This record gives sequence, structure tokens and C-alpha cells, in this order.
Amino acid sequence: MAAPGAGASGEDALIARYFKPLATNPGAFNLADDAAILKPSGDDLVVKTDAIVEGVHFFPDDPPDTIARKALRVNLSDLASKGATPAGFVLTLALRAADDAWLTPFARGLGSDAGLFGCPLLGGDTVSTPGPVMISITAFGWVPPGKMVRRSGAKPGDRVVVTGTIGDAALGLNILKGGPAAAALADAAAKAMLVGRYRVPQPRNALARAVRDHAHAAMDVSDGLAGDLAKLCAASGVSAVIDAPSIPLSAAAAAVLAYGAAGIETIVSGGDDYEILCAVPEDRFEAFAKAAGLAGVAVTSIGTVIAGDSVPSFLDREGRVIALPRLSFSHF
Amino acid sequence: MAAPGAGASGEDALIARYFKPLATNPGAFNLADDAAILKPSGDDLVVKTDAIVEGVHFFPDDPPDTIARKALRVNLSDLASKGATPAGFVLTLALRAADDAWLTPFARGLGSDAGLFGCPLLGGDTVSTPGPVMISITAFGWVPPGKMVRRSGAKPGDRVVVTGTIGDAALGLNILKGGPAAAALADAAAKAMLVGRYRVPQPRNALARAVRDHAHAAMDVSDGLAGDLAKLCAASGVSAVIDAPSIPLSAAAAAVLAYGAAGIETIVSGGDDYEILCAVPEDRFEAFAKAAGLAGVAVTSIGTVIAGDSVPSFLDREGRVIALPRLSFSHF
Repeated sequence: MAAPGAGASGEDALIARYFKPLATNPGAFNLADDAAILKPSGDDLVVKTDAIVEGVHFFPDDPPDTIARKALRVNLSDLASKGATPAGFVLTLALRAADDAWLTPFARGLGSDAGLFGCPLLGGDTVSTPGPVMISITAFGWVPPGKMVRRSGAKPGDRVVVTGTIGDAALGLNILKGGPAAAALADAAAKAMLVGRYRVPQPRNALARAVRDHAHAAMDVSDGLAGDLAKLCAASGVSAVIDAPSIPLSAAAAAVLAYGAAGIETIVSGGDDYEILCAVPEDRFEAFAKAAGLAGVAVTSIGTVIAGDSVPSFLDREGRVIALPRLSFSHF
Repeated sequence: MAAPGAGASGEDALIARYFKPLATNPGAFNLADDAAILKPSGDDLVVKTDAIVEGVHFFPDDPPDTIARKALRVNLSDLASKGATPAGFVLTLALRAADDAWLTPFARGLGSDAGLFGCPLLGGDTVSTPGPVMISITAFGWVPPGKMVRRSGAKPGDRVVVTGTIGDAALGLNILKGGPAAAALADAAAKAMLVGRYRVPQPRNALARAVRDHAHAAMDVSDGLAGDLAKLCAASGVSAVIDAPSIPLSAAAAAVLAYGAAGIETIVSGGDDYEILCAVPEDRFEAFAKAAGLAGVAVTSIGTVIAGDSVPSFLDREGRVIALPRLSFSHF
């Protein structure tokens, strides 16, 4: 990505117009060079890359600013769960055409979130594609040396904790697809909230420090709580028992479940939550919850890490294991 | 990207099978976590992202190992031109399906080049797409603090220098498209060489140190020599005069030109060269050329940086300005 000079092409003009205003970090060189610089800070650099594809991760007619925000936020969510402070990102944008009506709100949404999360645009590449729009972002964050919070590290007896509410995005997707969840909700605001949760995740970067200080293990919930917990447990060499009624639900999600328009399996395997899932030792939970409260992030204990290598169990109100036909979303 | 445990999905299995063997750096955590770590070295971290799209940057039936190599090498080429030593990369791979016959050679080519250039896979994301295959790579390199070689910095009197030969890839693309270049070459090996130059660039990472030590400004030639030189000059606030007959050509490219199957404008504006273009002060050229010789990289002085802000001129054998209908490739 480079701003135009003599011999400026359409691509250069596009970058200068839409993205140069976002490249506020000196290491971005105003997008007028071939590469960016990240100055060493003494901390470890956490690197995460995540892509979203039109028709797979978002709808063609989603508002462009929400597409931009989602592309950045799915990466910010990973940085948060790893205990890292955002440092910046690079963007690959594959477009069929340079459409001003799409690019203007896209760049506005991206710039707004870059400012909000302190994660400036450092560089990128804009390419043409005959296919779906695709946005790939590589995001960077800092953690003190050796302090990245791993998936491994959970120990028997740890509490299994999640932030926010689970399942909203899956129900929002259900509504956008014309599924039964819409019929369960008379309230347009409740429907809009669920759709909003699908389109614009709320990454829990405010909690990064508390996760780093207190959690044995953490990851973000992107593919579904059940599958992601299974991954965390496998990486840690443990299992877990989850009390399904403890899983925090929004009022809208609770209403959809009460109506019978979706089951708990949609909640725990739907994905796109972008909440933090972590294992917190019992004697740190109070301090963790207090730090979360100060950061303005709700945290809920939903179960316990146990010894073993079985797939984590989700128990219903009567303590019976809930059968889950699938644990999470997979691309292949 | 994460390796599978309990609840392994097709995506996880794909990553474990094809990409985990490439993740040899400890910071990649065997692709078993959500993010990677780059340990600070005291040096500046150079960050570059570049994507290639099926049908745009490569052909659907190109050998998969060459597609992988091209995806990595276009980024390595930028690191080389910035004077940086490769540190690693992350990969976003968008695929229509998990096809073993394609993924096996793709991963083999990628791993081979990662080893060859000392640039290990640190992490990535594999997503499904209904559209063309797309590979986006973000590559990292180290330079001593403040020593990244910029596009800006060229000064009047500097020599304009390129590595290797120019125009081969554009002619290779011409051949693959059934253009007239093929008819000019009776020799199958010459045709294969040009096609190979299009499919698998030769990034000049061996020259990174010499560029850092001697060049005032540098970039790699990806969109076309004429356009990229115009960008370097614009960033430096200078112009240049190029002696077109001095532009280094391969024997095959020279034969195509002599036959009249392509003109100099194809050579200088075709792009995909992935050679280094740099401005070297006159009193450093001898030392630069010597260092290049030791690194096994051919370098050729093709012109001179001059004061002014006009688009650089390309002069023919008689000293007349060559009219260039376009300077370089642009996606939009």
C-alpha cells in the first residue's frame, strides 16, 4: 500500500483517499512506503491473523462500516484473550471494484474502531478479485515478556469463566437468514440487538490486563463455546463440566429459548460470540471478578475444569448431559 | 489457526496435517494457540502484507507449489528491498474446498521456501470461500533501529540500479496467455524460463545487507519498472533519466524484443519482476556492486537520479524519450 505520486494509479488513489487518513502511526510512513515499522518495546509482540469473506462471515448487503468493524474486532478479540495491548494492524482488502459508496463507510468504520481500540492502521494491500469481498487483517499486540496467556495452562479445579453473553450472534445470524428466532421476538429492538451482535462483535480488550493477571488459560469464543472449550481443554490436557443454565444469556436470547425457537445447542455451538473464555483458579476468581467489574466487563463462572481428556460436558438443570450434535463451526 | 484436539474440525485437521509441520519457530506454539509471539530483538520490525488472487496474480492451473512460493516470495522481495532480514510470516488461505491433491504440493512449496529463506510460518487462518483461491501473507523482518531503507532518500546524482533482469515475468505472462511472445522463441527452455519467472519470483534477500549499507532509497519492482521508479522518485522529490538500452534483459527477453513480439514498454511496465530498484550514490556504487557480486546477485546501473518532479524519462539508443502508454499495473 502506498500513496500516489507521479504515475499514481487507481489503486494508489484509492489508498490515499480512504486509508492514508487512518495511518496515524509514524511507523506507517503515511502508507507512502512498501512496508511499516514496529519499534521494539521490550515486550513480546503477539501476532494474530483472521480473515472474513463475503457470503461466509458477513452478508453482501451488511452495512460496510459493520464489515470493517467486524474484520478488525475479530482480531482485537484474540489480542484481548491473549492478554495483549493492541499495537496496530495491517489490512488486505480484496474488492471487485473501487466503489465509493461502499469504501467511504468501510474506511470510516475501520478508522473509528482503530481510534477506539488504540490500534492504528500500519499498512496493507488492496487487490482486485472477481469473487467475494475478502478482508484479511493481521493485528499486533504487546505483552510483557513470556506473559501471553495460552490455551494451555488450565488446571483441574479452575473455574470456567466467560465474558458478556453467549449465543446472541448465532441468533442474530438466524434472524438474518429468516430463521425461527425472529418469530420469537415481538420487539424490533431485541431483534436489532441480536443482529448487531452478529455484525459487530464487542471485543473485551478492557479485560486484557485482568486475564493476564489472573487466568491460567484463555481464548476467545469464535467458533462456538462448546468447540472452543474443547480446544482449550485439549491444549491444557484437562476436561470440564459446564452448568448450562449458568451460561449468561441476553434477555433476547433467553426469550428465544423460552419460545422454543432455538435450543441450547445453538447457543453453545453457534459461534461468532467473540467473548473471552478463560480458566481462573478458584483463589483468584474474586480478584478477577473485581478487576472485570472495574473494566466494565461482565464475567460469569459457568463450570469447572476437571482432570481427564474427555470432551467437556454440558449439564442441564437436572444434571443430565446435553447431547450436542456438533461442537462448533468449521470451514471444511 | 490451531491444531486439533478433542472436537477437532475439518479445518483443524487441515491445519494440523499441512501447516503444523511448517511451524518450526517456538513462537508459533505448533499452531496450537490463537496467536503467535515474536520476541523483541532490539531491532525494528519491518511488516509487509501482500496478497495474491487466483485469476488475477496466478492461473487456476498453475502448479500449487509455485502458487505458495509466489505468495511468500512477493513479500520476501519487499523485505529484501527494505534491507530487512526475514523473521517469519503469517498466512491467510481462502479455499473453496480442502483438496489434498492441491494442498499437499502447496504446503510442500511453502515449507521449502520458508526453510530456504529462513522465514518460518508463525500462524494463520484458513477460511472457506465460494470464490477464487486467495493467499494473503504478512511477513516480518528485522532491521537495525532506524535503518529500514525507504522509498524516499534518493538524491540527484545517484545511480539508478536494478538487480537481475527486467521484463521476464511480463513475457512469461504473455506466453501463458497465448500472446505473441511464444512465437518469438523456438526454444522450449527459454519459454519455460520466462514462465518460471512469472510463477516463481527470485526475491533478492541475499542483497538486503548491501542495500541497507549503500542505497539511499529502494523498493522492489512489482507493478512495473517505470511506475515503480516514478513512485520512488515522487517519494524522494526527484526525477530520473533512464538509458533504456542499459536495462538488463535475459537472453530470452532480448530475443522476444529482437523478433518484435513485444516492445520495451512491455518490459518496463509489465511488472511482476520482484527485482530490487535502488538509488545508490556514485561514490558507493563500486562497493555496492562488489557486495552484490559476493552475494551472487547481478546489479546494473540503468540511469541517473536528477532534480525535478517530472515523471522519469526512458531514453532510447538515440537519446529520444520513449512514449509509455502506461507506467505500471493497477488493480483499479
